[in-house]
Amino acid sequence: MSGNKSLNRLEAFSDGVFAIAITLLILEIKFPHGGVEGGLWSRILALWPFLIAFVLSFFVILVTWITHHDLIHLVRESSRPLQLANGFALLYVTFIPFATGVLAENLTSSDVNTAVALYCGTFVVGSGAFNILVAIIINGQLLRKDVDTQIIYRIRKGFRIVFLIYVATTAIAFVMPFLALAINVAVRIFLLSIRYKPAPTDSQ
Amino acid sequence: MSGNKSLNRLEAFSDGVFAIAITLLILEIKFPHGGVEGGLWSRILALWPFLIAFVLSFFVILVTWITHHDLIHLVRESSRPLQLANGFALLYVTFIPFATGVLAENLTSSDVNTAVALYCGTFVVGSGAFNILVAIIINGQLLRKDVDTQIIYRIRKGFRIVFLIYVATTAIAFVMPFLALAINVAVRIFLLSIRYKPAPTDSQ
Amino acid sequence: MSGNKSLNRLEAFSDGVFAIAITLLILEIKFPHGGVEGGLWSRILALWPFLIAFVLSFFVILVTWITHHDLIHLVRESSRPLQLANGFALLYVTFIPFATGVLAENLTSSDVNTAVALYCGTFVVGSGAFNILVAIIINGQLLRKDVDTQIIYRIRKGFRIVFLIYVATTAIAFVMPFLALAINVAVRIFLLSIRYKPAPTDSQ
Amino acid sequence: MSGNKSLNRLEAFSDGVFAIAITLLILEIKFPHGGVEGGLWSRILALWPFLIAFVLSFFVILVTWITHHDLIHLVRESSRPLQLANGFALLYVTFIPFATGVLAENLTSSDVNTAVALYCGTFVVGSGAFNILVAIIINGQLLRKDVDTQIIYRIRKGFRIVFLIYVATTAIAFVMPFLALAINVAVRIFLLSIRYKPAPTDSQ
Repeated sequence: MSGNKSLNRLEAFSDGVFAIAITLLILEIKFPHGGVEGGLWSRILALWPFLIAFVLSFFVILVTWITHHDLIHLVRESSRPLQLANGFALLYVTFIPFATGVLAENLTSSDVNTAVALYCGTFVVGSGAFNILVAIIINGQLLRKDVDTQIIYRIRKGFRIVFLIYVATTAIAFVMPFLALAINVAVRIFLLSIRYKPAPTDSQ
Repeated sequence: MSGNKSLNRLEAFSDGVFAIAITLLILEIKFPHGGVEGGLWSRILALWPFLIAFVLSFFVILVTWITHHDLIHLVRESSRPLQLANGFALLYVTFIPFATGVLAENLTSSDVNTAVALYCGTFVVGSGAFNILVAIIINGQLLRKDVDTQIIYRIRKGFRIVFLIYVATTAIAFVMPFLALAINVAVRIFLLSIRYKPAPTDSQ
Repeated sequence: MSGNKSLNRLEAFSDGVFAIAITLLILEIKFPHGGVEGGLWSRILALWPFLIAFVLSFFVILVTWITHHDLIHLVRESSRPLQLANGFALLYVTFIPFATGVLAENLTSSDVNTAVALYCGTFVVGSGAFNILVAIIINGQLLRKDVDTQIIYRIRKGFRIVFLIYVATTAIAFVMPFLALAINVAVRIFLLSIRYKPAPTDSQ
Repeated sequence: MSGNKSLNRLEAFSDGVFAIAITLLILEIKFPHGGVEGGLWSRILALWPFLIAFVLSFFVILVTWITHHDLIHLVRESSRPLQLANGFALLYVTFIPFATGVLAENLTSSDVNTAVALYCGTFVVGSGAFNILVAIIINGQLLRKDVDTQIIYRIRKGFRIVFLIYVATTAIAFVMPFLALAINVAVRIFLLSIRYKPAPTDSQ
């Protein structure tokens, strides 16, 4: 009981951080105030790099939330190392709006390579945090008793592959930034395909 | 149980996003700093377009939250498609403060038509997201066992009508922007009238 | 059960709005960037009107949250009118950071009377919202069965007195703004003294 | 039951404030817009004082959340004094982003002593709030029946030592600001080492 209550507050706190980070993304859309150049339509259309970065990062945080949700769902009880590793994962989440702002502002500039590399590098750190989270769940034996141990090893394998892909995309960003962004989207679709349950019928 | 816990976190995350988006609206009220023109009263009175946009969007997000709340209340368990469709609906919610800011800044300018069209166009996307949400609940058979199937079909019909009205108001906005805004208020009152329960007495 | 779940989401949503509004207050402390005038100490000390407004509004929102918390605690189930009246109360809460910013910026200017009047006028609206909330709880018979009806009438009386005091302080603000602010603090201490329980021993 | 529900809302509200304050830290990273000086890399590297302050304060708020979490976990029921003392603790939490911004902007300036003193002084206030919280839990006999009284006395002792250390670091900040920051990190590691449970095996 005690463990569950502790876990509930960890989830509530994490949900709060995810919800705020995903909502703060909109503040990165910096609308040019005043009627400086052209009509309102042309000014809205000129925001396309911000809109792309906004939608991309929204998808990224949403998938991270789903991943976090499914992972913590396997956990039986909280612990000090879990709280700290979870905090590290949340540090990464709160950093995303900043990396998104830098990406949006430089998507059409000559600094696009640097901006995408920073963006992908953020995910290297984030993926590292999630790998640490999985290691702590395994080593601390925090898994729920009714969860098949094979599942967490499958997740660990998936997370390690994703970590390597992020390292690769950070390198690719310096040469082909838009390819790096496309791979990022593909990785999230892969992350959504990781199953956290042994079979579709056991979800009730 | 497992399904309920998953649904609880989806609700908690969604409530967080709704709460933040509705509170961020106030940041769109850009008060002219310093004593540039006239006294404080005249500067406060000059904020009326911001206040109207603030109250209007507050009402919009509140009704969206009530709608979301009543809809998810009918659901038995969460699923991956439901999480993604819900994320799309939340993407729309987080975009509202931005559309509100554009509306407020242009309510008294010659660009008012464009600003209202963007505002109404945002609701076309949002209504699309809610229609997808209903389709996923129906197709994924996620409805609670004790819920009359007729209710979800009635809701689907209502949501489809609302979608068409938003498309119409977006077109109307280019000609009569203030009529388009008035229709928006009327649609929300209609949305509040949709019943999610078979009879008033079964709520306990 | 159904009513309780609905009430839980209303509380969760409200808690979110209260938590965000109270945290956004700090964003109203506008620190003068760069080393324009004097050292850092003198610039920090020059922020005293912002700090006073910050602490004052923090206390105001905290007491409003406690009041909201104790009031909803008496309620048995949610309803459409309760959701809307609660939304009106939250509209007032989200407006407080704006009124606080105006107050802070004008506390040492000749516009202090107007700024304090706006600040107090905000509480007239908020108190109106809470009076509507109480009326809906009474008229909709939403009170928990085990709650003594006398309690809600005592609360209603208290809320009506507070409403009249806010109207008075708004008028007083034009003549003696700092007295108006002092009365505001006193009213909150009065609000904290309203008992929502028949006797101290029944809280378990 | 009544007491627990009240405590749950206090936790939910607190979790919200912690989550928002920790996420708002990122807004303090003020990126120099436009290509004023050098390429994007040099501009990102120039942000190092902001990144250090961001990571430091993230760690501070995370440890404060863990401490708050473990402390409230020992409490049986809420009370009016507990709500107010908890509000005072949250006031401190919401102030951290401001102190962090001042710290980051002055980390490389001649005002670094003043900025670090303000930063450490904030923790003196915060530690004071947590000491009051502990006093109220003890004096109001709010401890859970199954909690060993010795634990709360051990926590009180730990909190008092921490308070004195913060007073000392505030003084040290004027002479050796970076030593003061290092002590702050050490204090948080000490805070994490305080045990809130009699033995590691009783957590289930």
